[in-house]
Amino acid sequence: MGNQTIYFKHRPRIIATSTIAGPKECEGIIGRYVETALADDMFGESTYEKAECKMLSTVIDGAIANAGLHRDEVDMIVSGDLLNQIISASFAARDFSVPFLGVYGACSTMAESLAVAAAFVNGGLAKRVVAATGSHFASAERQYRYPLELGCTRPPQSQWTVTGAGGALVSDSGDGVEISAATLGKVVDFGITDVNNMGAAMAPAAADTILAHFRGTKEDVEDYDLIVTGDLGALGSRILKDLTWEKGLDINKNHVDCGEIIYNVIEDEYQGGSGAGCSAVVLNSYLYHKLMTGSLKKILFVATGALLSTVSSGQGESIPCIAHAVVLER
Amino acid sequence: MGNQTIYFKHRPRIIATSTIAGPKECEGIIGRYVETALADDMFGESTYEKAECKMLSTVIDGAIANAGLHRDEVDMIVSGDLLNQIISASFAARDFSVPFLGVYGACSTMAESLAVAAAFVNGGLAKRVVAATGSHFASAERQYRYPLELGCTRPPQSQWTVTGAGGALVSDSGDGVEISAATLGKVVDFGITDVNNMGAAMAPAAADTILAHFRGTKEDVEDYDLIVTGDLGALGSRILKDLTWEKGLDINKNHVDCGEIIYNVIEDEYQGGSGAGCSAVVLNSYLYHKLMTGSLKKILFVATGALLSTVSSGQGESIPCIAHAVVLER
Repeated sequence: MGNQTIYFKHRPRIIATSTIAGPKECEGIIGRYVETALADDMFGESTYEKAECKMLSTVIDGAIANAGLHRDEVDMIVSGDLLNQIISASFAARDFSVPFLGVYGACSTMAESLAVAAAFVNGGLAKRVVAATGSHFASAERQYRYPLELGCTRPPQSQWTVTGAGGALVSDSGDGVEISAATLGKVVDFGITDVNNMGAAMAPAAADTILAHFRGTKEDVEDYDLIVTGDLGALGSRILKDLTWEKGLDINKNHVDCGEIIYNVIEDEYQGGSGAGCSAVVLNSYLYHKLMTGSLKKILFVATGALLSTVSSGQGESIPCIAHAVVLER
Repeated sequence: MGNQTIYFKHRPRIIATSTIAGPKECEGIIGRYVETALADDMFGESTYEKAECKMLSTVIDGAIANAGLHRDEVDMIVSGDLLNQIISASFAARDFSVPFLGVYGACSTMAESLAVAAAFVNGGLAKRVVAATGSHFASAERQYRYPLELGCTRPPQSQWTVTGAGGALVSDSGDGVEISAATLGKVVDFGITDVNNMGAAMAPAAADTILAHFRGTKEDVEDYDLIVTGDLGALGSRILKDLTWEKGLDINKNHVDCGEIIYNVIEDEYQGGSGAGCSAVVLNSYLYHKLMTGSLKKILFVATGALLSTVSSGQGESIPCIAHAVVLER
């Protein structure tokens, strides 16, 4: 069993980010840090899918502009989203005359796209790459679960897909947050079949990647100010802490989950936020700010994804999950 | 406008491949080269989607075995497919305890996954990576168009999604076909809205990438034994040759399209093969054999993808497309 951790010796860095989020999301902790706060989650578009695409396009442009660059100074866009055939990312990329790599890692996309961007920049194959992803509550809900019009009751273990997007400009030079390593995850399936219980499905994947990271790097949990998971929610985070603790790794003290913290009040009916946009928004607004201002020095960003589809669930399959980790330091 | 071509100085190489194809596909030119010829396109599974996943899993394992390796000697799998949430690739990866990067480029996936694999290997981030993709006629048809049971008439401009998969083991050492460069494509949309006319939709993307490649590398068409596109089909290939010719690049003499050559007889009702499996099977069987045995010395492999979904088409969007090119030489 090889070492899953790869090291970016040339230290690609995130020199700028951009974020956008819906009204519900901006009521919470990220409200003060998000670049664009939407008053209306339709974003002036006629469908939720088009709104999601526009959010993604906005943060890609935002990350480029915040780095003081123009579109033609960017070598590549690495992006994906939750929609079938990642149409938000593909259609957003259509607006840019920039080479595009589409990735799919469900809600792990922010970490996956950062790792891929860092690999190209580290290897001298690209100088500046935008990594971005996003999600929209309404488009995800109707694709993965039920049409909103049905008004289905949400079970207590469910999470709320974040309406938001985040983008990061990864560069070979400049001042920013360094991406020093990544631990790419394996597909892990513990047999969960409840499509409303993503936290429980994804927690074993997060545990697997986090354990692989500390096994491979021989670092201690204390070397990190935070171990940030993507969207496990409250229940999934509890499961993750149990699973890692059972294997002798105690992450209790510095673990935080983007899904658990994104909403102001975790209401009774759900476990927190989820969706590719969840960790993308929290990382590229709140966490990036804390890293750039020195409150955080080094974090392990572990975005988690559930790789199911309605077809796979309909055919009786359980939910395979994945988690990719990137080390971010300042 | 930057140079879209990236160079892999350390020459990652494809040291082994594996392919599988359905009965209809094996009647044609690839029949003699495919590793596993299926007598039944259900492949012993209960659904088309599960058969597609099993095909992908088979070629990943096959590429590893043909390289004389074991699963635990592989650092990463880079894969994607056409199904919603790339379930074939994700579920195939579940069988392997190997880090997984999911990519989405529709039918351009073989080139995209090879380019990503080469980037990781070239940069010293991985030693051995499997790049793989596939498709299945029945799963694609019912997802993108109509249930087969409807028995819809196929229009003359339509293509036939290939039932097949191909995998390549990209290594930092060993004897094989070198991946010396890649030109990553931009998303190009000429406004085609006919979901049965993928060739016309994708031809401008192929032209854009091929033109960018020759502009960037300053090479001549004659430097290549073949310029191989993925699945433009007969009509799309004609359009591609017109579009490049208009821009002063004559590729007529050495252009060939995997979709145009994969079936034995191009019947009246369609333009040839398509699907992510089309170029994956042709490259990893027939073309790889020709490269390894010296009949071909250097080819430009340009896989093309149509980045639509049923939702995007339903919302009135045209079809954005992409083409990624990799230089393969022996």
